[in-house]
Amino acid sequence: MSLLWAKGGGAPDSAIQAFCAGEDVLVDRHLFTFDIDATRAHAHGLSRIGVLTADDVTSLDAALDALRADFESGAFVLDARFEDGHSAIEAELVRRAGEVGRRVHAGRSRNDQVQVALRLYGRARAKELAMATLDCASACLGRARGDADAPLVGYTHLQRAVPSTVGLWMAAFAEGFVEDAEHLALTARWLDRSPLGTAAGFGVNLPLDRQGVADELGFAALQLNPMNVQSSRGKLELGLLAAVRSSMLDVRRLAWDLSLFTMEELAFVGLPDAFTTGSSIMPNKRNPDVVELLRASAARVLGAEAEIAACLSLPSGYHRDLQGTKEPFVRAVEHARAAIALVPRLVAELTFDKERMRAAISPGTYATDRAVELVRDGAPFRDAYRQVAGELASLGARTPEDSVRARVSPGACADLRLDEIAVRADRLRAELST
Amino acid sequence: MSLLWAKGGGAPDSAIQAFCAGEDVLVDRHLFTFDIDATRAHAHGLSRIGVLTADDVTSLDAALDALRADFESGAFVLDARFEDGHSAIEAELVRRAGEVGRRVHAGRSRNDQVQVALRLYGRARAKELAMATLDCASACLGRARGDADAPLVGYTHLQRAVPSTVGLWMAAFAEGFVEDAEHLALTARWLDRSPLGTAAGFGVNLPLDRQGVADELGFAALQLNPMNVQSSRGKLELGLLAAVRSSMLDVRRLAWDLSLFTMEELAFVGLPDAFTTGSSIMPNKRNPDVVELLRASAARVLGAEAEIAACLSLPSGYHRDLQGTKEPFVRAVEHARAAIALVPRLVAELTFDKERMRAAISPGTYATDRAVELVRDGAPFRDAYRQVAGELASLGARTPEDSVRARVSPGACADLRLDEIAVRADRLRAELST
Amino acid sequence: MSLLWAKGGGAPDSAIQAFCAGEDVLVDRHLFTFDIDATRAHAHGLSRIGVLTADDVTSLDAALDALRADFESGAFVLDARFEDGHSAIEAELVRRAGEVGRRVHAGRSRNDQVQVALRLYGRARAKELAMATLDCASACLGRARGDADAPLVGYTHLQRAVPSTVGLWMAAFAEGFVEDAEHLALTARWLDRSPLGTAAGFGVNLPLDRQGVADELGFAALQLNPMNVQSSRGKLELGLLAAVRSSMLDVRRLAWDLSLFTMEELAFVGLPDAFTTGSSIMPNKRNPDVVELLRASAARVLGAEAEIAACLSLPSGYHRDLQGTKEPFVRAVEHARAAIALVPRLVAELTFDKERMRAAISPGTYATDRAVELVRDGAPFRDAYRQVAGELASLGARTPEDSVRARVSPGACADLRLDEIAVRADRLRAELST
Amino acid sequence: MSLLWAKGGGAPDSAIQAFCAGEDVLVDRHLFTFDIDATRAHAHGLSRIGVLTADDVTSLDAALDALRADFESGAFVLDARFEDGHSAIEAELVRRAGEVGRRVHAGRSRNDQVQVALRLYGRARAKELAMATLDCASACLGRARGDADAPLVGYTHLQRAVPSTVGLWMAAFAEGFVEDAEHLALTARWLDRSPLGTAAGFGVNLPLDRQGVADELGFAALQLNPMNVQSSRGKLELGLLAAVRSSMLDVRRLAWDLSLFTMEELAFVGLPDAFTTGSSIMPNKRNPDVVELLRASAARVLGAEAEIAACLSLPSGYHRDLQGTKEPFVRAVEHARAAIALVPRLVAELTFDKERMRAAISPGTYATDRAVELVRDGAPFRDAYRQVAGELASLGARTPEDSVRARVSPGACADLRLDEIAVRADRLRAELST
Repeated sequence: MSLLWAKGGGAPDSAIQAFCAGEDVLVDRHLFTFDIDATRAHAHGLSRIGVLTADDVTSLDAALDALRADFESGAFVLDARFEDGHSAIEAELVRRAGEVGRRVHAGRSRNDQVQVALRLYGRARAKELAMATLDCASACLGRARGDADAPLVGYTHLQRAVPSTVGLWMAAFAEGFVEDAEHLALTARWLDRSPLGTAAGFGVNLPLDRQGVADELGFAALQLNPMNVQSSRGKLELGLLAAVRSSMLDVRRLAWDLSLFTMEELAFVGLPDAFTTGSSIMPNKRNPDVVELLRASAARVLGAEAEIAACLSLPSGYHRDLQGTKEPFVRAVEHARAAIALVPRLVAELTFDKERMRAAISPGTYATDRAVELVRDGAPFRDAYRQVAGELASLGARTPEDSVRARVSPGACADLRLDEIAVRADRLRAELST
Repeated sequence: MSLLWAKGGGAPDSAIQAFCAGEDVLVDRHLFTFDIDATRAHAHGLSRIGVLTADDVTSLDAALDALRADFESGAFVLDARFEDGHSAIEAELVRRAGEVGRRVHAGRSRNDQVQVALRLYGRARAKELAMATLDCASACLGRARGDADAPLVGYTHLQRAVPSTVGLWMAAFAEGFVEDAEHLALTARWLDRSPLGTAAGFGVNLPLDRQGVADELGFAALQLNPMNVQSSRGKLELGLLAAVRSSMLDVRRLAWDLSLFTMEELAFVGLPDAFTTGSSIMPNKRNPDVVELLRASAARVLGAEAEIAACLSLPSGYHRDLQGTKEPFVRAVEHARAAIALVPRLVAELTFDKERMRAAISPGTYATDRAVELVRDGAPFRDAYRQVAGELASLGARTPEDSVRARVSPGACADLRLDEIAVRADRLRAELST
Repeated sequence: MSLLWAKGGGAPDSAIQAFCAGEDVLVDRHLFTFDIDATRAHAHGLSRIGVLTADDVTSLDAALDALRADFESGAFVLDARFEDGHSAIEAELVRRAGEVGRRVHAGRSRNDQVQVALRLYGRARAKELAMATLDCASACLGRARGDADAPLVGYTHLQRAVPSTVGLWMAAFAEGFVEDAEHLALTARWLDRSPLGTAAGFGVNLPLDRQGVADELGFAALQLNPMNVQSSRGKLELGLLAAVRSSMLDVRRLAWDLSLFTMEELAFVGLPDAFTTGSSIMPNKRNPDVVELLRASAARVLGAEAEIAACLSLPSGYHRDLQGTKEPFVRAVEHARAAIALVPRLVAELTFDKERMRAAISPGTYATDRAVELVRDGAPFRDAYRQVAGELASLGARTPEDSVRARVSPGACADLRLDEIAVRADRLRAELST
Repeated sequence: MSLLWAKGGGAPDSAIQAFCAGEDVLVDRHLFTFDIDATRAHAHGLSRIGVLTADDVTSLDAALDALRADFESGAFVLDARFEDGHSAIEAELVRRAGEVGRRVHAGRSRNDQVQVALRLYGRARAKELAMATLDCASACLGRARGDADAPLVGYTHLQRAVPSTVGLWMAAFAEGFVEDAEHLALTARWLDRSPLGTAAGFGVNLPLDRQGVADELGFAALQLNPMNVQSSRGKLELGLLAAVRSSMLDVRRLAWDLSLFTMEELAFVGLPDAFTTGSSIMPNKRNPDVVELLRASAARVLGAEAEIAACLSLPSGYHRDLQGTKEPFVRAVEHARAAIALVPRLVAELTFDKERMRAAISPGTYATDRAVELVRDGAPFRDAYRQVAGELASLGARTPEDSVRARVSPGACADLRLDEIAVRADRLRAELST
């Protein structure tokens, strides 16, 4: 279809416009309330330097309140009638507040307008994702406490290696998710600087009250240099996605473990019904679809990072290429939100078949324990290793409980330190709530 | 919002369903007519082995015709009422043709149904993209012919290097785009094998007429092994995107050249008005937005490749993770289509400022010509090089026309071989049309 | 260390030189003989247009022969004494043949010199990798023939799905590897064009016999346009890596299957001793290290693609950035060579525990067979599906042999078409050998 | 060559060993001193729990001191005689200290040994890179101070947009590099936890003094859970590379600016001689090779991230795949070190052609200033915009100095806030030094 006119001498202007607009306005739905907040703060700042009057601000505040309410209720729909969310705000302000709606753009350009909306969005989502990742940690910690000492074989190379416990396994994810939440929180702090008031990268000949605007928006500081604001586009998004990636890598690993542990040959774990689906062709099966889609979720973040990075090989100054960083950023963040939100319930509702778990601890898995005992008593490790290799048969007298009870190194089965992990989680949760 | 229930003990079932469905049904709009075609061919195959009657087929054909017509006219909209396009076809067939609508799924699973739709889609788009890339080549060839000998400085390292011509520059893209189209065409042939009739990866206990179905769908051969059909998911998509990537890399380079050549400091080239936009803050500017968005387009393909590749680290057999390969594949292909379609008109409507181009050929750029002359007459290259470095001042007597007229090595300014490039393009065009 | 001088006011010139040279000269070891071949052909071409004499050529041929022999015997080592392989050839020619060694660079630049070496290297390696991938296919085909009908459960979602066979499983990889070899072969043909004689991107003022040189080097055609030769740098490498990626994705999947099938809980497959290693801490274990490193090998190719693509966002004309494409390209190709070369023996020496394989086929896996039987006899699939779900208990009377013998759809267990796969492999092998 | 034996029935054991070892031992040169430090601390810990005696420790300390000294002096070379750095340490300890050399491996596995070396390496390099990035910031700040008010045109879309200054341009990089250094420093803190004492992922049956060992190595805390230690492999490396990526993206942008600003058509900037090279074919040129290689450097980091991420789709527990994360991590970090180290001198020695810079400020670039003035005086922006578009001709009476002097918004040309940027840099430098 599109190819017909290509042959007839060229793309029509409508095709060019469609190409430029892309899905921008739909993506902007995720940024819209942040853009409204920033527009309000910018208007307040303009009034403090005399560019807008108190009456102007009153009208604008009312119009912005109404627009936000209409957007949230669905009475106002942000759609292809508008080029993007920024145009929509301006059009709605003019419609609702008259001429003053046009004046709110003074001292601002699209460039810092989109940047501040993205910054507010990124900061808010980073914190939400950090909280949601802490919820994952809490769910894992709950299961670790609940079955701290239940024996479970520990695998390396997918081979049975040593006796371990449900507690160790679940605590691993608990600590991992706390690390991920810390990564998100650090990154949220890193990008917590206001770009608003830098216009198109060179500032303006107005004494903008940038600090006051930043304070109103709750930013920790200003991103000072206007050119740097433009240059940091994409860099900050990539920084945030790197932290999202950490969470998603752990979600992926958890999904892998569940995918394996629910194989009929292992059958250590059962998935909650809501997380499985029937096969379209095989009446005998329940498939772990949700777990598999969670496993695939990291791919969204990795793809978005590659896409954004590929837009950024540019000189200083705004280039329209940078628009290409917005859609993958929002796409990856929103997908990660949806994925992480499913994990706490999934973890909470797993069922454990402790008998099967215990039965899978075969005698050979005691070999490391025995070797370390010999070492403790003075044998060089390599000699102990060789000696144990010759006495594997005699290890069957040991029990899983004996083995894990003796695993006293800090963090190991007999000393899980769940409280320390919980304390880190609580501390971060408190920090994020302020 | 979603976080509230996450805290209240877990994601509700609706959130799980939303996560599983994703945007699948919207993506399936691009696959829908291909799915209809494959469903028809499958039904015909079933009738040939006696699973469906002639009457069944008549009803199904009519219902499929009507569904396609309604889809194309907009009377039928594929939207979130359906889980995906496959469900929609089944539901519509039952609604339109009654019970037989349910029987068309015999001997087929979702797995080979989605694969065949993707294969038909991929093959069709690969050919269209190849044709569209040849249109880009033709446009460049047209400009190369039009101004074959117009002097234009040749840059290396963004430094003026040697006298060159518009002809050489435009012919470079012509040949590049022909290479890209060849890459697409080769890849289209590579994946031209029918996956239909392999069910969920293990075939079925029915003597399916796979070859007849493949013939009806115009496939060159069968992809034989049912497990391999599943295993090739993602691999073939990546193969196709690699060829799309070739085209987009050349589009990106062309966009870079135009971005530079339209700088006021060079001003060799003017963009058609339809391809520029005004600045939102600077009344003095026309911005090359479309060119910049074209430059960013390769990023979509690179991101999609990274995303798909990240889904594929899996054992044999279908896994739901593979659903994650569909959306980025379609997203990248459709974006590339839209981007490439703009290039022929863009190239055709560029304006060249030949005076500025010629004026930029500074005396130093004749140095290589002089050095090669000395070499031709017997000097070792390094000596010639040193000699010329000492006589740069005297080179000013040369003209751009002299220089490029003497550049007789095959493919160079004096021997562009435009006809050879055109012949390659024509040959491929003919091959793609059959 | 390096930081000390950074503080003291700047990097010394030696640091700059080290940064520029990188590991270039070591990478060039892989390109060296190709560079020698191309240098010889270039010299012959120069003699045909009178720039070199017959005596010059005789001297140069002898010197090149000697250099190649010394390089292959180890008498000449390409190392950091030289900036790169190109400098080494020039220095050695001067040392061995005198002044004429300097004249061989006439009409050539480093740019087309490196490109032709890379092109010859890429073409040769693509063909070798295609052959090696066919060796993988043959090994899989051999195992498929050897145990064509041995029952093996077929998994989807890592859940037991339907009865299948070793034949189907191994044939899947056989067909997959043939596809990959075809991808490599197509790509080898795609890039089989000579860049030599295009100098630094603008040709030269000499009537170079490019066609004769290309013929001597066995190229199918010329890459005509000198600017396009420069522009295609990286693009062609990425195209080739995309085909290498196909092979490596199948190697990765095979490694995944082996990793699972050697788990103690499945124990369907045993690895050859040479492919396992002992654990450094656990005397009870043999670890599938080689299989795991094979699984990780695709990552090298994916990383190299990302690295190369990230160098390429550039305007036309050579830029030194492009040097950054060489090392990852060679690194990925050489790693893939080493990985693929291990697969045939690995496959050939696997041991299959057919009793365990057969025992894992649980009654529920017959459900699909039963559902299709009902469909064949007239039931709508969804109804058949529901009926079978109610009679799972009664399926236990079936045998794996019955099930797979009835799987008659083309490509399935009862109709594996191994000969067709072998024919494709043989045809491609013959084509590659010419 | 390797293909010959592949055909003769399989890879020989030597090929398998070579594949497994890879370049591991060479990469370990970068980790070796860190491994020595960790080995010493581990030995001290073992003595505190009675597994080693005081005499053992004395011998081991001496042997480790000597080994480190020999490694640093070059008397001991870590090369292919050893499988990897860990084996080398053990072999050398036995050689130098006798039997006790074997006992130091008690309670430790290769898994936590390599992790702790990587963690120490990563932490040290992150801090060094942060410091080196601050050196870049300082160099930029120095140039910003030196020519704070020198007029320079500000570009957007590579089009002249508004009058700006060298101060604004250089300060942009100063602030950007400070942000990058903060990213590195945050990440260094994030991963500052000791993995040592977790063995192969399940701890050991010894009361290891993990906290004491961590204190000796200067870690801020323990990474508690042994399985999580294994699971975090690659995740932490990716986190660190994300911060390195930030720095390299700014290096890339700086390189782009220099590449443009040194074009003859702009000629705003001159590069120091040490940073340019001559052309191999064009006597007239000095090429900005170093700048171009700096521009390509980000690609190394992006490629390494893709490579590492592609290794990580795995269940819990160590897998040999993870070895594949080490080489790209070290490769990217070391390349970034080399690249960043060149930047301060490059920036410090740039020459600015202020006359050409000033002359490039064309009248149209005053349009934004004028529009904002109209807005300040009450006009809606869109109206002001239209008015100015009609009076472009009259803007020529303005001067660059007037324009930038009026650009008073915080961070803009008339209010650069260089001191605030310097304070942030100093604060971080102080923090990193403790």
